[in-house]
Amino acid sequence: MHNPLLNRRTFIKNSSKLAAGLALVSSVPKSSFALLRHKPKIRFSVIGINHSHIYGMADTVIRGGGELVSFYAKEPELVSSFSKKYPQAKLSRGQKEILEDASTQLILSSGIPVERAPLGIEVMQHGKDFLVDKPGITTLKQLAAVRRVQKETRRSYTIFIERLESKTISKAGALIKVGVIGKVIQTMGTGPHRINPSSREAWFFDKKYFGGIITDLGSHQFDQFLYFTGSSKAEVISAQAGNVHHPQYPAFEDFGDVMLRGDQGTGYFRVDWFTPDGLQSWGDGRMTILGTDGYIELRKTLDIGGREGGNHLFLVNQKETRYINCNNEPLPFSELFISDVINRTETAIKQEDCFLAAELALKAQAKAKELRFGK
Amino acid sequence: MHNPLLNRRTFIKNSSKLAAGLALVSSVPKSSFALLRHKPKIRFSVIGINHSHIYGMADTVIRGGGELVSFYAKEPELVSSFSKKYPQAKLSRGQKEILEDASTQLILSSGIPVERAPLGIEVMQHGKDFLVDKPGITTLKQLAAVRRVQKETRRSYTIFIERLESKTISKAGALIKVGVIGKVIQTMGTGPHRINPSSREAWFFDKKYFGGIITDLGSHQFDQFLYFTGSSKAEVISAQAGNVHHPQYPAFEDFGDVMLRGDQGTGYFRVDWFTPDGLQSWGDGRMTILGTDGYIELRKTLDIGGREGGNHLFLVNQKETRYINCNNEPLPFSELFISDVINRTETAIKQEDCFLAAELALKAQAKAKELRFGK
Repeated sequence: MHNPLLNRRTFIKNSSKLAAGLALVSSVPKSSFALLRHKPKIRFSVIGINHSHIYGMADTVIRGGGELVSFYAKEPELVSSFSKKYPQAKLSRGQKEILEDASTQLILSSGIPVERAPLGIEVMQHGKDFLVDKPGITTLKQLAAVRRVQKETRRSYTIFIERLESKTISKAGALIKVGVIGKVIQTMGTGPHRINPSSREAWFFDKKYFGGIITDLGSHQFDQFLYFTGSSKAEVISAQAGNVHHPQYPAFEDFGDVMLRGDQGTGYFRVDWFTPDGLQSWGDGRMTILGTDGYIELRKTLDIGGREGGNHLFLVNQKETRYINCNNEPLPFSELFISDVINRTETAIKQEDCFLAAELALKAQAKAKELRFGK
Repeated sequence: MHNPLLNRRTFIKNSSKLAAGLALVSSVPKSSFALLRHKPKIRFSVIGINHSHIYGMADTVIRGGGELVSFYAKEPELVSSFSKKYPQAKLSRGQKEILEDASTQLILSSGIPVERAPLGIEVMQHGKDFLVDKPGITTLKQLAAVRRVQKETRRSYTIFIERLESKTISKAGALIKVGVIGKVIQTMGTGPHRINPSSREAWFFDKKYFGGIITDLGSHQFDQFLYFTGSSKAEVISAQAGNVHHPQYPAFEDFGDVMLRGDQGTGYFRVDWFTPDGLQSWGDGRMTILGTDGYIELRKTLDIGGREGGNHLFLVNQKETRYINCNNEPLPFSELFISDVINRTETAIKQEDCFLAAELALKAQAKAKELRFGK
């Protein structure tokens, strides 16, 4: 193996691998690149991993510059897959140990929904910020307590709703800001989801744990209504929720819809658990934003019978009809959020916007008439 | 010109024209073919042509086997284009002459909306059926009178709503009937329209003439909600209407939306006058029908940024995602309607369905809260 030619060949081969590697790196989205480039900016832990949303949440925080140091889950059966995905995270003996670790600034959770707010309150009282899966708060009483403790501690309580991880929503927001559809009049959203009953735990089917379908799936919708209309006040005009097709789960809700009126626009949305098996996605989520001079339609996860993939935006205004694929749009949440944790700012999402969306959801759920048909 | 060769040539030339003509005839849709093939089955007249919808209505009746014999319009400026299109129709000296013509069985009208019901009552009292542009009735008081006279006279009062001339709606109805999406849970419709102010008469901008946007544009939506859910009873949960962007027309309404609950399903719709100039249609009308085992989306007039033309149906159910172009679907209204006039049946649309849709629209309009934003 001392053949210099061979060595030279090996060198050339490795050089071209290096070149290919660099090309690969340059095609990595900016936010992931940050992960490779920088040393961690903050340290964080996880308590409660009952919904698999926790993986996307942890990845988001790592991408923005967070180091995952430890986690805790009551359920031994959930621990191993989390450990496999994040071998760097130490399994703690309990949540107290994590709360009292002075080296971390942030706790994430996708615990059982009804237990999230009490945990978040403890997290803030331990001087840490909280990033929680939706629904982040399941009763109006919880909301009042969360609001009070947030005010006392000045920590942040962020609910990880769709807008924060959606390139189409963020692109639509940017387009609307520069006036492409004039003044927004109305938003109309649909959030259908696939039920996948065999993959669900018992708490999924009982609204005393998840707060009801409007609180749960609706959480994204209230946020997007406020975001796109620019409303800072809103009332629930009417709401209904019910279990129209799952009698085997009597405490479940499979359908909900809500009409809203804000100080800057009106809104409607429908959420449901009726995504059929023939759809190539967990749900055909749409959002139509009607303005005085045009409208935008988001086909978030897919374009049925149409274009490949997700993140589709259709813009129609006084000038043109235009399709925009948002796959390469920036998604600034990760970096902004970590920066907020460090600098005590609210650039990723305002604390009050987060609470207002949750408040509207909880009020709509409380007001919702039970939907029943026929005999 | 006695050259026999030339004559023979002329004969051949004419023969090939005849052959081409036959080929042309065979490509004409079945319903138009009926017009060429059969002698008229009924005779009809027109009173009031204020909206250009009258042309589509008259064509529909002619296609089904009607002979247009006479018409009357108060406005001399509207008469000439109607006469040009239908030279066979005699211009009457007044509406009395038309009402008293014992040779006709049917009267059509697209008069000013508020004048339609009083005319229809007279029509029925003269022993004739009435086919009227939407909105066919603009107040609840008019509706009560129309219902009473219809019962007394046993004539029909048919409002020409979208379903009767839409291939996608009729195809969706047929698919739902055979259970492709299970039991219908909800309908969600949008009916945006282009305002074209320069083409409109003064009555268009004053709701005392057209009854309000929910009564007018909403008329299609209530009908489709009842049709697709199969409801025979329904209540208006909430409704709002307003003039959010046309201060120059203070008595106009440019936006309305309604939530409905029927005995067999629930529904929501939005109607508006905000179609932007960059859309290649007067309005991007959609209808999504959610069932327990799938959903159907209709893109009625066009598929923005997608397929050419109109009449698009997307079906997603437990088995598949399927696109259906409905351009070649049958549209049986013309023939059924003429047959109903002759045989005193209700195969095209049931009288009570027509009244119930109008009743819901008028109740929703009466209940609608005024929509206003900002200061």
